[in-house]
Amino acid sequence: TNAVYTGLPTTIFEVMSRLAIEHQSINLGQGFPDVDGPEDVRRFAADALITGPNQYPPMMGVPELRQAVAASNKRFYGLDVHWKTEVLVTSGATEALSDIIAALIEPGDEVVLIEPLYDCYLPLVKRAGGIPRLVRLTPPEWKLDRDALAAAFSDKTKAILINNPMNPAAKVFSRDELNLIAELCVAFDTYAICDEVYEHIIFDGAPHIPLMTLPGMRERSVRIGSAGKTFSLTGWKVGYVTAAPHLLDPIAKAHQFTTFTTPANLQKAVAFGLGKGDDYYAELSGALAAKRDRLSAGLADLGFAVAPCDGTYFVTADVTPLGLAGDDVELCKRMTIEAGVTAVPVSAFYAGAAPTQFVRFCFSKRDEILDAALERLGQWI
Amino acid sequence: TNAVYTGLPTTIFEVMSRLAIEHQSINLGQGFPDVDGPEDVRRFAADALITGPNQYPPMMGVPELRQAVAASNKRFYGLDVHWKTEVLVTSGATEALSDIIAALIEPGDEVVLIEPLYDCYLPLVKRAGGIPRLVRLTPPEWKLDRDALAAAFSDKTKAILINNPMNPAAKVFSRDELNLIAELCVAFDTYAICDEVYEHIIFDGAPHIPLMTLPGMRERSVRIGSAGKTFSLTGWKVGYVTAAPHLLDPIAKAHQFTTFTTPANLQKAVAFGLGKGDDYYAELSGALAAKRDRLSAGLADLGFAVAPCDGTYFVTADVTPLGLAGDDVELCKRMTIEAGVTAVPVSAFYAGAAPTQFVRFCFSKRDEILDAALERLGQWI
Ligand SMILES: CSCCC(=O)C(=O)O
Ligand SMILES: CSCCC(=O)C(=O)O
Repeated sequence: TNAVYTGLPTTIFEVMSRLAIEHQSINLGQGFPDVDGPEDVRRFAADALITGPNQYPPMMGVPELRQAVAASNKRFYGLDVHWKTEVLVTSGATEALSDIIAALIEPGDEVVLIEPLYDCYLPLVKRAGGIPRLVRLTPPEWKLDRDALAAAFSDKTKAILINNPMNPAAKVFSRDELNLIAELCVAFDTYAICDEVYEHIIFDGAPHIPLMTLPGMRERSVRIGSAGKTFSLTGWKVGYVTAAPHLLDPIAKAHQFTTFTTPANLQKAVAFGLGKGDDYYAELSGALAAKRDRLSAGLADLGFAVAPCDGTYFVTADVTPLGLAGDDVELCKRMTIEAGVTAVPVSAFYAGAAPTQFVRFCFSKRDEILDAALERLGQWI
Repeated sequence: TNAVYTGLPTTIFEVMSRLAIEHQSINLGQGFPDVDGPEDVRRFAADALITGPNQYPPMMGVPELRQAVAASNKRFYGLDVHWKTEVLVTSGATEALSDIIAALIEPGDEVVLIEPLYDCYLPLVKRAGGIPRLVRLTPPEWKLDRDALAAAFSDKTKAILINNPMNPAAKVFSRDELNLIAELCVAFDTYAICDEVYEHIIFDGAPHIPLMTLPGMRERSVRIGSAGKTFSLTGWKVGYVTAAPHLLDPIAKAHQFTTFTTPANLQKAVAFGLGKGDDYYAELSGALAAKRDRLSAGLADLGFAVAPCDGTYFVTADVTPLGLAGDDVELCKRMTIEAGVTAVPVSAFYAGAAPTQFVRFCFSKRDEILDAALERLGQWI
C-alpha cells in the first residue's frame, strides 16, 4: 500500500471527537458549530430532495451556485469572475484542496507551507510528489518571519499554500504580509493556493483580503470557499473554487475524477444562502466575536496564556503558566478524561518537532456550553 | 500544471449531456435514471436535514450506514464483514476509486485494466504513478481472452481493477472468468479492486458474484457499492467500500484527506434504503430488464446489431449494418443534432486505438422516452 497513507494516524480532529464522545466530554476540539445553520437554507435543501431531480448535476456545479459564488466575489471583494469558466463546486474544501494540489503540482515541485498547518496539506502535497518547504510562525502571536518566508522560495517553488484566516493560529494575515507573499509569488512565478474557508469569520471590523486581489495575483491564485463554514453546516461538504480558466481547467479535470459532482439539493440551497443580506454575515461574525471574548476571557481568568484571535472559530492558548506544558497530546487526552473538556493539541499541526505547550479551543458553541467548559476546567485546575 | 490533468478532455458523459441539453435531444447518453428513486428514502433524507445535526459525521461514515452495508454483504453474498473496521462510506463510487487507487498503488506499480473501461480508471492510475496494463474484451459479445488476461499479469502487477457488472459492455463476468481472475490474483499476489456499483442491476435471475467471495480473495479484494445506482439517486454521491482492515486502513486515510466525510442525512437515508425487502431489489432489476428488452428489440428492428446485455443499464450496439460505422464520436454528435437522440461513443472507453463502430445507449428511462427515441431514430435512419 502507498507509503503516503500507510501507517498515517487518523486525523486528530476525529481522534479527539471519538474520545470526547467516549468520555461524555464537552467537545471544543474538532471545529464545528453546535447549532446548525439557517433553517431556511436547510428547508430549501430538503424541498429540493422531494421535488428532484436527484440525478447527476453538472460536473462544474449547478449554474445557480456558480453564479452565486461569482456574485459573492464581486460583492465582498470587487472581484470580477466569470461563473462559467472561473468557478467550480466541490464536495467540500478538502476535496477542493485535493483537486487543486493534484492538478497544479507535479513530482519534484516545491510547495511553501506555513506551520502550524491544517492536517491535510502535507499528505496531499506528498501524494502529488511535491516537496514541502515549511515556514514557521512564531508563537505566541503567530508572527510571520519575513526573511524565513523569502528564504523558502526558490526557482523550484511551484506554489504557496496559505490559509487565511488561519486555522489553528486564528491569525488574519495583514495587508503588509499579503503584499510580501504576493511579491514573492510574482518574483518566483508561482501559484498561490488560498484556503479562505473562514473568509466570513473575521472580527473587529477587519476586512478579509483575498490574496487574489493583490497586484499580479489574479491569474496565479486559486481561492477556496466553504459553505460548511459560512453557513454553519460543516456536514454538507459543499466547497467552491475560484480561479482563472487556465488553472481551473486542470482542477476541474481532477475534480471530475475525484467526486465528479456534489448533491444538487445542497448546491441549490447554498446558492440561496449566499444571497442573504449583509445582516446575515454581520450576525455570523458578531456572534462568534462575542463567543471568542467569552471563552478567551474565561481561559485567561483560569491562567491560560490566550493568544490573540482575529478570525476563525478557534483560539490557541499556552498552558505554561498553569504548569501543564510538556506534552500537549497527552494533556488534551487527560483534559478530556479528567476535566471533561476536549481541546486539540497544536503540535498536531506541525510536520516535525513541534512546540508542545499550546492547545486549541473551538468556540462556535452555545454560551452555556462554553461556560460549562470553563467551569469544568476551573474545577480541574 | 500536472500532465495527468492538463489538456484532458471533459468526460464524455458530461460532453454528451451538455450537447443533448443544447439540442433538446433525448438523452440516452450519460447513465442516470429519469425517475428518481424511492420517495420514502428521499423523505428520510429531507427530514434529517431539518432535525439535524448537519455537522461533520464520522470520517468512516455514520454507524447506521456502515452496519447496513455490512448487513447487505451478509444478506446478498454471505460475506461476514465487520462494520467498524471493514466498511467505509465515500462521496460516491468515483471518490472510492480515487481513494483506493491512491492508497494501494505506488509509482511504478502495474495495474491490470480491462477495455472498454470506465473513464476515470486511467487518470486515477496515472495520478498514482501506476502503469496500466490493458486487456481488451472482444466484441461484439465482449468476450474475455483468457490468455491475454494471463499475459497481463507479472511480478510487477499490484492490482487488477474489474468492473462487474461492466459498464459499458453490459457484461456480467461468468463464474469461470472470475475464477481465472482470482487464480491470477492469488498466483501473482495482487489486489483486486472490484467496482461492483451495478451489483443489483443484473438480469434473468443470474446471481451477482463478488470477486471477494472466491477462494483466496477475501483479504485481497476491495469491493465498491453505490447508492446512486442501487436507489436511482445518482446525484447523491454516496458510495461504500468493503475491504479487510489492512486494506481499508490506508484507503480511509486517503478518504480522510480527499472529502473527509459525506453528508449525514444522505448516509442515513441510504442506510434506511438498504433495509428494503427483496421485492425492492427484484422490482429494480425486473423493471430494468423490461426496459432493456424494449430498447434492444427496438434498436434491432431498426437494424442496429445489438450486443447482449446481462447487467447495468446500458446496451451497446454495432452500427455497421446501418452503414454508420467509422467515427462513433462524430456519429453520436450527428445523432444528437439530427435525430434528437443522444448516445455515447464506445471509443471513449479506450485508452488507445479503439473500435469505432459501437455506441452505448442508457435504458433507465421511462418507456415513453425509450419509444420516442426509437421513433426518432427510425425517422432519421
Ligand atoms: C475535517 S474535521 C476538522 C474540522 C476543522 O476544520 C478543524 O477542527 O480544524
Ligand atoms: C459520472 S457521469 C457517468 C455516469 C455513468 O456511470 C455512465 O454514464 O457511464
